Amino acid sequence: MTETKANAPVGVFDSGLGGLTVVREIMRQLPEEDIVYFGDTARVPYGSKSKDTIIYFSRQIVHFLRTKDVKAIVVACNTASALALEEIKDEIDLPMIGVVKPGALAAAKATQTGKVGVIGTQATVSSGIYAKVLSEIDPKITVTGKACPLFVPMVEEQMMDHPVMMEMIDYYLSSLRQSEVDALVLGCTHYPLLRKQIHQYLGESITLVNPAYETAMGLKELLEEQGLRNTQKKQAAADLYVSDLPDRFKEFANSILPLDIDRVKMVNVEQY
Amino acid sequence: MTETKANAPVGVFDSGLGGLTVVREIMRQLPEEDIVYFGDTARVPYGSKSKDTIIYFSRQIVHFLRTKDVKAIVVACNTASALALEEIKDEIDLPMIGVVKPGALAAAKATQTGKVGVIGTQATVSSGIYAKVLSEIDPKITVTGKACPLFVPMVEEQMMDHPVMMEMIDYYLSSLRQSEVDALVLGCTHYPLLRKQIHQYLGESITLVNPAYETAMGLKELLEEQGLRNTQKKQAAADLYVSDLPDRFKEFANSILPLDIDRVKMVNVEQY
Repeated sequence: MTETKANAPVGVFDSGLGGLTVVREIMRQLPEEDIVYFGDTARVPYGSKSKDTIIYFSRQIVHFLRTKDVKAIVVACNTASALALEEIKDEIDLPMIGVVKPGALAAAKATQTGKVGVIGTQATVSSGIYAKVLSEIDPKITVTGKACPLFVPMVEEQMMDHPVMMEMIDYYLSSLRQSEVDALVLGCTHYPLLRKQIHQYLGESITLVNPAYETAMGLKELLEEQGLRNTQKKQAAADLYVSDLPDRFKEFANSILPLDIDRVKMVNVEQY
Repeated sequence: MTETKANAPVGVFDSGLGGLTVVREIMRQLPEEDIVYFGDTARVPYGSKSKDTIIYFSRQIVHFLRTKDVKAIVVACNTASALALEEIKDEIDLPMIGVVKPGALAAAKATQTGKVGVIGTQATVSSGIYAKVLSEIDPKITVTGKACPLFVPMVEEQMMDHPVMMEMIDYYLSSLRQSEVDALVLGCTHYPLLRKQIHQYLGESITLVNPAYETAMGLKELLEEQGLRNTQKKQAAADLYVSDLPDRFKEFANSILPLDIDRVKMVNVEQY
């Protein structure tokens, strides 16, 4: 690989803004890597849509990111990782990594009972991908999946500390409370914002797995394997694109990323 | 107007499936009119997106409906009626009607106190369109708007009869309870499914206005004015298109429309 390529940015995408939690983790673990991020805020959410549509949207985004000369692509969206990654990664000549495999590896490490829970969107949970990947890691692990479609809109309504939030957690997670599940994958980028409430409900003995950290470490390994690590020491940059509402996105980005974002650009991703 | 044109179908669109409640009302009031419906299930919801994006999506849908030779277009989505109708109706040579004006007219008739409430998506409520239209009808009417973003996902989760639903209604509507509002516009096609619960919470003395009936009557008037009423007596047909998940849509359509839907067709609306 040429040095030019190693100095190229990493492309990251998500259905909206949740994927910035993965960007934050990449910036912590790989501070010298530049990032180009795309959030599909015009078509969010993905989690209630079909596999074909998620593949179609993801393909357009990958085509867009390629125009930015990225050296690798991180699918920071659980739904797109679950439904589109396998399909698309063979179509392009760039290394791609999603959040599902890293999340599954972390859960397999964390569980003692061999019983792992997965919460996510309807599409992610219905895909059965975590069960498939976990059984490849360790065939003895059993997976209980539960789709929690209201968690994302409630987080976006900032209702995390409202009493109704705990009732909604009870609505979705009561069956997990009585189970032997001792590791729970937070299989949607919004869910780490409910970490405190979920721990309070399920007890401190359960390990909550946020795939963001493992994804950053997986990216590091992937770049090293392929000789693509950026070895130039400098201040990394993040270039952010969305398909709608750039100002709202900029505000959120500045609240969670460790660098100042001056501008978020709009792009009509349908054209890619 | 030619007879051919009068026999053409009426185009109806919505961000998803809620607009079928408007189709049902059109079928009741104008049983001889054929319908071509488009639901944008790949990009739903619209209510949390920008005006520009809602106009862009609506314009694509109008272009698609034109290819079906419709004689008029009903914007069955409150958000698109609030944000895109004014912009688009001057661009095409077809009569267009939305749900906002009919809803506002019904609310103006219903109120005695002159205080009208409007609930809807963030985009609809922020647009201030109901206040604008109502003040044109009667400058003495004052409007209290309240965005209720969680109502749609909760209805889609079938939580209407769950105790959490009443708490969410309290979360959004407690300020209306103490007000003099005596007519409340259900400014989103999903909300009529919460009619019973909202009445229970706000009391029977408030009139809940569902714009669907008034929209069908408004369409009738519009078609008559323009000599476009279908005078051929026959069994009307409905031709349904979506941008994603046609099977789920078909099931819903068969549960609410008064005729059998054999097939819902997929269309890539981005191409229009």
